[in-house]
Amino acid sequence: MTELRLLPLLGLPEVREGDDLAELVTGAVDVADRDVVVLAQKIVSKAEGRVVALDGIEPSARAREIARPDEDARRIEVILREAARVVRIRASLVIAQTRHGFTCASAGVDTSNAPAPGTVVLLPVDPDASAARIRGRVRELTGRDVGVVVSDSFGRPWRQGTIDVAIGAAGIEVIRDLRGVRDRAGYELQATRIATADEIASAAELVMGKVDGVPGAVVRGLSVAGDQQATQLVIPPERDLFR
Amino acid sequence: MTELRLLPLLGLPEVREGDDLAELVTGAVDVADRDVVVLAQKIVSKAEGRVVALDGIEPSARAREIARPDEDARRIEVILREAARVVRIRASLVIAQTRHGFTCASAGVDTSNAPAPGTVVLLPVDPDASAARIRGRVRELTGRDVGVVVSDSFGRPWRQGTIDVAIGAAGIEVIRDLRGVRDRAGYELQATRIATADEIASAAELVMGKVDGVPGAVVRGLSVAGDQQATQLVIPPERDLFR
Repeated sequence: MTELRLLPLLGLPEVREGDDLAELVTGAVDVADRDVVVLAQKIVSKAEGRVVALDGIEPSARAREIARPDEDARRIEVILREAARVVRIRASLVIAQTRHGFTCASAGVDTSNAPAPGTVVLLPVDPDASAARIRGRVRELTGRDVGVVVSDSFGRPWRQGTIDVAIGAAGIEVIRDLRGVRDRAGYELQATRIATADEIASAAELVMGKVDGVPGAVVRGLSVAGDQQATQLVIPPERDLFR
Repeated sequence: MTELRLLPLLGLPEVREGDDLAELVTGAVDVADRDVVVLAQKIVSKAEGRVVALDGIEPSARAREIARPDEDARRIEVILREAARVVRIRASLVIAQTRHGFTCASAGVDTSNAPAPGTVVLLPVDPDASAARIRGRVRELTGRDVGVVVSDSFGRPWRQGTIDVAIGAAGIEVIRDLRGVRDRAGYELQATRIATADEIASAAELVMGKVDGVPGAVVRGLSVAGDQQATQLVIPPERDLFR
């Protein structure tokens, strides 16, 4: 393994519904084969029109019950609608599992960096499919075979702060499986499934930044070509110790 | 933000107790001011002699109860001794909170890449202090002001696979706090404490690798100078929804 480079996607405009993200990416960075293009969920969702105006939302009794007095119960209602399963509620923080299987705050519903006041942004309907589409379109535009990761900032139990993880992936090995591999002394490694896609998302976040409008990055120098999807990162219910 | 580079620490020998890690690092990479040196916990622990021979361990009744028939109850005993609090047990997987506050599998006790058969490696006694010592020694050797992160591979609830996180830090901003900062549309950002140190650890893991003997990396191009410790990443019990 030689050096790895992380190239921020600079100069992208505000993304609107219908925008061609592959065109924006390849206009910002001259992509090469085996690059991994990491895109913030927010711009993928916006390009796909996954924006909801709170105006048209009627909060349920449960949403009103969860929302604090100073809060918009319609936002809670959208979260509950996006949730396949509520995992924890404290104050008005709702931790929920989405239909994709991801467990995160607000079921992925986000108000910051929304396209207009009174709107919220939802996760893509199928972020793996989004990644595959963008990957195909990059190939169409440039002939280059890149991997694509759709990233989002998730909190996690026990540790402060958010880190970026993969919620969509295409053309990469999402989990590197070293089970059965031996260390230098000949002992079989333990705990050796590495969530490479999540580490790629976290690495990319370091050059992205939520305020300065860098909504993606290109990771160059990795050997992670593969064909796994981000949904493979979800622990199946029967093995989940923290449901 | 321009490009970020991740330089693997190549050619390091097997680390032994008493080894000067700063000397090994600065021999492998010509470090620059503001670089962040990421070192796998395993080599920090080995240099500090945090290795236990199972030979001298008498397993308690509880360790015997947890260990499966094909397992070494002495290893479970070491885990229980390293645990400040057991969080979950399933089969012989013990998820525990360490004395430092970190919640992870086996309380950080590891058998792979141990220095000899019949030994296990413990976490450093104080990984933040380890990072600070290595940082000071790098300055002594080179005059360079670097940040240092001690990383380890942790599993996490809900998501498959491990990612590397920071268990020790010196000279960096561990958590980037954007609360009160506004997005491009003027809206205050939500969920805006970013666990930068964990993302740095994950990024470095991408060039490290457990089998090919690359026990660290240098991250170049970040602006994360600061003075926080990795223990600040631990969520205080009263705010922990997943105890």
